[in-house]
Amino acid sequence: MSKVSTENYKGVRDFYPEDQSVQNYIFFIWKETMESFGYEQYDASILEYSDLYKAKSGQEIVTEQTYNFVDRGERDVTLRPEMTPTIARMIARKKRDLVFPLRWYSIPNLFRYERPQKGRLREHWQLNGDIFSINNIFAELEVIEIASTILRNFGLNDIQFEIRINDRKILNKKFEELGLNEIQSSELSRLIDKKDKIDDFDEQVEKLLGKKIRLDFEPNEEITAIIDKLKRRGISNVVFSPTITRGMDYYTGFVFEVYDTNPENNRALMGGGRYDDLLNIFNEEKLPAVGFGMGDVMLRETLETYGLIPKHYNQTDLAFCPLNEAFFDIVSEWATELREAGLNVTIDYSGKKIKDQISKADKRGIQFISCIGDEEISSKKLIIKNLQTSKETKLPLSKVAQFVKNNRSV
Amino acid sequence: MSKVSTENYKGVRDFYPEDQSVQNYIFFIWKETMESFGYEQYDASILEYSDLYKAKSGQEIVTEQTYNFVDRGERDVTLRPEMTPTIARMIARKKRDLVFPLRWYSIPNLFRYERPQKGRLREHWQLNGDIFSINNIFAELEVIEIASTILRNFGLNDIQFEIRINDRKILNKKFEELGLNEIQSSELSRLIDKKDKIDDFDEQVEKLLGKKIRLDFEPNEEITAIIDKLKRRGISNVVFSPTITRGMDYYTGFVFEVYDTNPENNRALMGGGRYDDLLNIFNEEKLPAVGFGMGDVMLRETLETYGLIPKHYNQTDLAFCPLNEAFFDIVSEWATELREAGLNVTIDYSGKKIKDQISKADKRGIQFISCIGDEEISSKKLIIKNLQTSKETKLPLSKVAQFVKNNRSV
Repeated sequence: MSKVSTENYKGVRDFYPEDQSVQNYIFFIWKETMESFGYEQYDASILEYSDLYKAKSGQEIVTEQTYNFVDRGERDVTLRPEMTPTIARMIARKKRDLVFPLRWYSIPNLFRYERPQKGRLREHWQLNGDIFSINNIFAELEVIEIASTILRNFGLNDIQFEIRINDRKILNKKFEELGLNEIQSSELSRLIDKKDKIDDFDEQVEKLLGKKIRLDFEPNEEITAIIDKLKRRGISNVVFSPTITRGMDYYTGFVFEVYDTNPENNRALMGGGRYDDLLNIFNEEKLPAVGFGMGDVMLRETLETYGLIPKHYNQTDLAFCPLNEAFFDIVSEWATELREAGLNVTIDYSGKKIKDQISKADKRGIQFISCIGDEEISSKKLIIKNLQTSKETKLPLSKVAQFVKNNRSV
Repeated sequence: MSKVSTENYKGVRDFYPEDQSVQNYIFFIWKETMESFGYEQYDASILEYSDLYKAKSGQEIVTEQTYNFVDRGERDVTLRPEMTPTIARMIARKKRDLVFPLRWYSIPNLFRYERPQKGRLREHWQLNGDIFSINNIFAELEVIEIASTILRNFGLNDIQFEIRINDRKILNKKFEELGLNEIQSSELSRLIDKKDKIDDFDEQVEKLLGKKIRLDFEPNEEITAIIDKLKRRGISNVVFSPTITRGMDYYTGFVFEVYDTNPENNRALMGGGRYDDLLNIFNEEKLPAVGFGMGDVMLRETLETYGLIPKHYNQTDLAFCPLNEAFFDIVSEWATELREAGLNVTIDYSGKKIKDQISKADKRGIQFISCIGDEEISSKKLIIKNLQTSKETKLPLSKVAQFVKNNRSV
């Protein structure tokens, strides 16, 4: 038999327990924060008909960056690259049964076919939050407040991130003044979005439009009001930033991105905006919508940079180390009793020397161990050793659960 | 623009908030139970190189039932149909860095291309638990005890499910006695697995082997010991069942499946077994392994049949209903204060009549509301109405969080 590779697929990740515990921590903060704002969780399959993305996404995504294939029933299927088309579809599907306004969140796994690089992988997990049928800036304010609260809940200080906001309507007005057609507007919008990353911005604009132009933008009333109201709510790290356009064609007004202010990691941690027209593609009437997405990859890198990832603890409270295989049955009964009392308990069934068993439990980061020999079996009194303090305590089995709960460090 | 369909892809599911809350409940019981047995969570991407499945899976799966495609870099990629090959790959990849024995669990999303039918979809979520490097029956016993504990934790009674166990070695010995070659053994094993579902079992066996045979099996010592030891641990719904073979070729000994005993739903809720040789495909030495999988679709149907799905509660504690848009800013500040004190709070920004706002909060199942008018703004004293009891309580803002926590029903 030829050897199979142990490598994972290019550009995706394996989550060993230490990685998964970081992932669980990130998901926990996301979930707690979204629910504190009254958002309800939803999800869908990663498989969607490709038609869903052909109508309104940015061109780059549909043609080059999606994973899509034809199934055995000749259906054109896509691994979802983003969640917004899915939530729009789900709402259009049951619009008459839903109680609006809706506040929904999800933590989907998303896929993009691109060259793997720092902070960009072929799959990632992304928090998505959306609020539907609020047609005033209090939806925008809420979404920015959520963005700020999430990052603060991860321990970031306000000087460590900047919320950059813009309004597509400012761009559209300018494009109209310049007399641009739809394609030129769309292309120029994409150029402006990349402005800070490209050296020859002015040349590219000239090439696109056939003339030199001066691009200056002023905030409109809405943007000014948003910045002002957020300040009064204690959120001051918000600036008007006319180069924030967001790639997707579906945004209709307000757009934003949140940047790590560390000059060595000057990339967007999250972004979003208002997209009131997305239900059009389902022949449904307009539905006011403001949403955002926040990926796990960049967030995790940022938290690591700032030392904000909590230490990994083993969730297992107690390891039983039986001196003899003859004790396995009785020890497993004791373990069941302690689990029913709320402890996480493992048993060493290796039959190896006690020193070896203790060393394994220690390496694994388990806080308490209890070695079981003849004495313990006959007396039903256990010696519980705290591996963090080396302190030993002798207790009847019935007192072990409470003792461990009172003394565990996690 | 042509209309895009709101249907989801064939054979997959949308999870609206009510569905997602059931899903979250199932995942919660899975997670709590696995961690109570000292298992650590891991995960991986759903994308794997197709080679991983070509070496050792059941034939049916590789050739007809997988989603696979060739990516733009000419790599043959599969959406994982099961998790066992992935965990084997991950362990082979870092074998020298891991502290054995390992107890790992995961809740992966899995994909199979098959005709959607009751209990069988094209994607599902599956709890996977595995224990590595334990070479005695205490691994088998632990896995069965976990299976039993999970179903009990969901509220199932022992008479509602039956644990059917077998040993591949019993089959292999019989096949040897019959002088079968590898292909005949594999085919006969598959026939035996389907025995209860097909009418012409004896005819098919005769066709395969070219002769009539009598198939009778006796439990071996190991199976007898497992049943005996489980009984002593209070698990009596375990039977020797020679038709349980499990489709996959990688099982090497003990196999089991758990069945709903309801005659109208006589299908497997979960299954697993020992697979000591799977690391061979990576040219690694044997590693003792016992594992199991338990899907969400059949489980959910079973819990629904027995009325064991908990009622869906809205996680949002309090809805603010401001009488006037002029109060939105101050109300949002109050909401922030209550969130920081641990409540989940939403604000109605619709600007609609108060009656309409209250009715919406009620429809959504939110327990407490507070209507905000001039009086509340100037006094900073709120009237908190419990929509479940209709009782109203007047409180200063600073006392609201504690009051709601003391009186909420979830």
